[in-house]
Amino acid sequence: MRPIPRAETFPVNTPAASQVFTTVLSQGPLARLEVARRVGLSAAAVTKAVRPLIEAGYLVEGADDEARPALGRPANLVRVDGGRALFIGVKVTGDEIIGVLTDLCCRIRVARHVPLPDRAAKAVLASVADLVQDLLTEADGVPVPGLGVAVSGDVDRAEGAVRYSPFLDWRDVPLAELIALTTGLPVTVDNDVRALTVAEQWFGAGAGLSDFAVVTVGAGIGCGLVVHGRVVSGAHGVAGEIGHVAVDPNGPLCHCGNRGCVEAIAGEAAIVRRIREITGAELADAAEALALARRGVAGAREVYARAGEAIGRGIATVANLLGPERVIISGEGLAAYDLFAEQIRDAFVAAAFGSAAQCDVLTRPLPFEEWARGAAATAIQSFVRADV
Amino acid sequence: MRPIPRAETFPVNTPAASQVFTTVLSQGPLARLEVARRVGLSAAAVTKAVRPLIEAGYLVEGADDEARPALGRPANLVRVDGGRALFIGVKVTGDEIIGVLTDLCCRIRVARHVPLPDRAAKAVLASVADLVQDLLTEADGVPVPGLGVAVSGDVDRAEGAVRYSPFLDWRDVPLAELIALTTGLPVTVDNDVRALTVAEQWFGAGAGLSDFAVVTVGAGIGCGLVVHGRVVSGAHGVAGEIGHVAVDPNGPLCHCGNRGCVEAIAGEAAIVRRIREITGAELADAAEALALARRGVAGAREVYARAGEAIGRGIATVANLLGPERVIISGEGLAAYDLFAEQIRDAFVAAAFGSAAQCDVLTRPLPFEEWARGAAATAIQSFVRADV
Ligand SMILES: [Zn+2]
Ligand SMILES: [Zn+2]
Repeated sequence: MRPIPRAETFPVNTPAASQVFTTVLSQGPLARLEVARRVGLSAAAVTKAVRPLIEAGYLVEGADDEARPALGRPANLVRVDGGRALFIGVKVTGDEIIGVLTDLCCRIRVARHVPLPDRAAKAVLASVADLVQDLLTEADGVPVPGLGVAVSGDVDRAEGAVRYSPFLDWRDVPLAELIALTTGLPVTVDNDVRALTVAEQWFGAGAGLSDFAVVTVGAGIGCGLVVHGRVVSGAHGVAGEIGHVAVDPNGPLCHCGNRGCVEAIAGEAAIVRRIREITGAELADAAEALALARRGVAGAREVYARAGEAIGRGIATVANLLGPERVIISGEGLAAYDLFAEQIRDAFVAAAFGSAAQCDVLTRPLPFEEWARGAAATAIQSFVRADV
Repeated sequence: MRPIPRAETFPVNTPAASQVFTTVLSQGPLARLEVARRVGLSAAAVTKAVRPLIEAGYLVEGADDEARPALGRPANLVRVDGGRALFIGVKVTGDEIIGVLTDLCCRIRVARHVPLPDRAAKAVLASVADLVQDLLTEADGVPVPGLGVAVSGDVDRAEGAVRYSPFLDWRDVPLAELIALTTGLPVTVDNDVRALTVAEQWFGAGAGLSDFAVVTVGAGIGCGLVVHGRVVSGAHGVAGEIGHVAVDPNGPLCHCGNRGCVEAIAGEAAIVRRIREITGAELADAAEALALARRGVAGAREVYARAGEAIGRGIATVANLLGPERVIISGEGLAAYDLFAEQIRDAFVAAAFGSAAQCDVLTRPLPFEEWARGAAATAIQSFVRADV
């Protein structure tokens, strides 16, 4: 018999409560006065927001032994009770589905990988439903008030719909509604890179920054943008499409219909195709292409070098338009990083305008569990957010 | 004898007061409850913010005869008293300085153009000082608590410094400090396109939008971005550099050192240079180049067409990364709009990814007085802002 998730709602429905909770979640434990300072609210407003959250068990307040000063009373700190509720995050790739069960602090308790035999929406739905069922069993009766699903492509989070996902070959799939029907959970669907960006903003290399970008390299070249402290979603659902920044009008044709997009030069399929053309080698996948280049086969290294140049130019475009404090490069394509790191750096520095070149560009390998964790973070975001 | 400006400070120093005032300024007259709804504050918080502003004469509240309902009491509305304080805005171009005296509602009372005989910082400072003196006389005793100066290039508003202005050939000029010394006024220095964007956000085609872009075509190709309701300034002072988005790696050399930047193809100097090369015609300026193209001289039209394509691709890059609701094209280059409008549109539609193409792209001619007004808007912003 499938366990029925307990209905669970966040007890406060104001922007202030949502902001206070998210600040404690990502930066806590914190004293109330420090929370007030960081969110720009009065101490009274913080107390008003905190009280029902403590009553409902989402926040706890108490002396923190670790933060005890040498003399005087220990600081009274507010923190999130991670065990109060659990969340599920699912990342769908072209080959497999990765699911995690996290606590309310978005710490991973269980991670599962299941192969994806078929990319059709119906088959994916069935696999997701099984995986979620499995993770719900692991929750062991603790309420699971939300499920986040991360999919690559043009995803409209507000509508819960996948408008277009080239890797899955989906168009206009009302994914949130369909998964809510099969799982019985409130579902948040978001673009996978944006979901990863939420996790980086709360707990990763973007913590404390108001303006940064996450650039992912691999099958696709994606970008999550945080501007003025919030993830950019785009008025029409599209944003962060660094993969379709055109860097060469005479470059290779892209699946989007244009020529010379960053993804058409630096995406894994493009790299494999180009190395095949140049070397004549039979290559099954990106790993084989990488092995060939590492063995020093003539021409293969140059393909990676050109990919790095395209990525560096794409990052410079982001920096010239938005001036982020930091760009975090991640994604499974980092496996080849030694083959294009220098070109990314050189192309970025050459194409960055003026002080935009001061932007801190770093790499950070994040396995797919982290992407699934990002999906769980979007579910937590929806759960605590007043305007959803 | 120069009139000494009365010292004048905004009576409230909280983010809430600043937000309430700006909302009434750009969207008023409004009832208090409507202000509360729009800024997401409680009615009590709005009342608390409004009281000292009414006492100091910046806001007035009263029955609005125009908004009188057919039956019942007239609505009691809050509005800004435009005559309570005046502001000066100055836009510096390569050829002239444009100055405006505005009221607190940023309505232009006086506009002046003075030719700029010399672009050296010292000469510009002297011209600005004379122009400001002239405008202060026009203020006729009403307090002028701020001056905004708009300059093209890499401008650090927080530091009040022009880092690099190619058109003026300036590097690291502490402009705010220098002008404050000569005028005795609090000075806000900002990038000219960002200043224009503030005016568009408060009073123009960006009013009510949380995400839009202003793209200016002319001597330079610039871009002001509003994301999540705020103008993007960039962590290091650079943002909106659409002019240095590279659209053709084999294109003409740009003054920034790269090849094929939008500005190196579509900036006025680039257009004039290219038409000279192709036709062999002696051309003094952009107006002569335009006349030649309008007469149908072979090759000249194609140069404008290529410029339009570069601008359209630049706008598509902005749309693919940020997904704005609207892009407003302006700038003196609109004089040639009939020669490249179609190419801008076609290149934008072709290069926009998925639903990013739904972005509303419109043109809006804004004379340099409007840019100077934008500079005055930044001065008002600094005056009322809590964090400056
Ligand atoms: Zn593309
Ligand atoms: Zn350039």
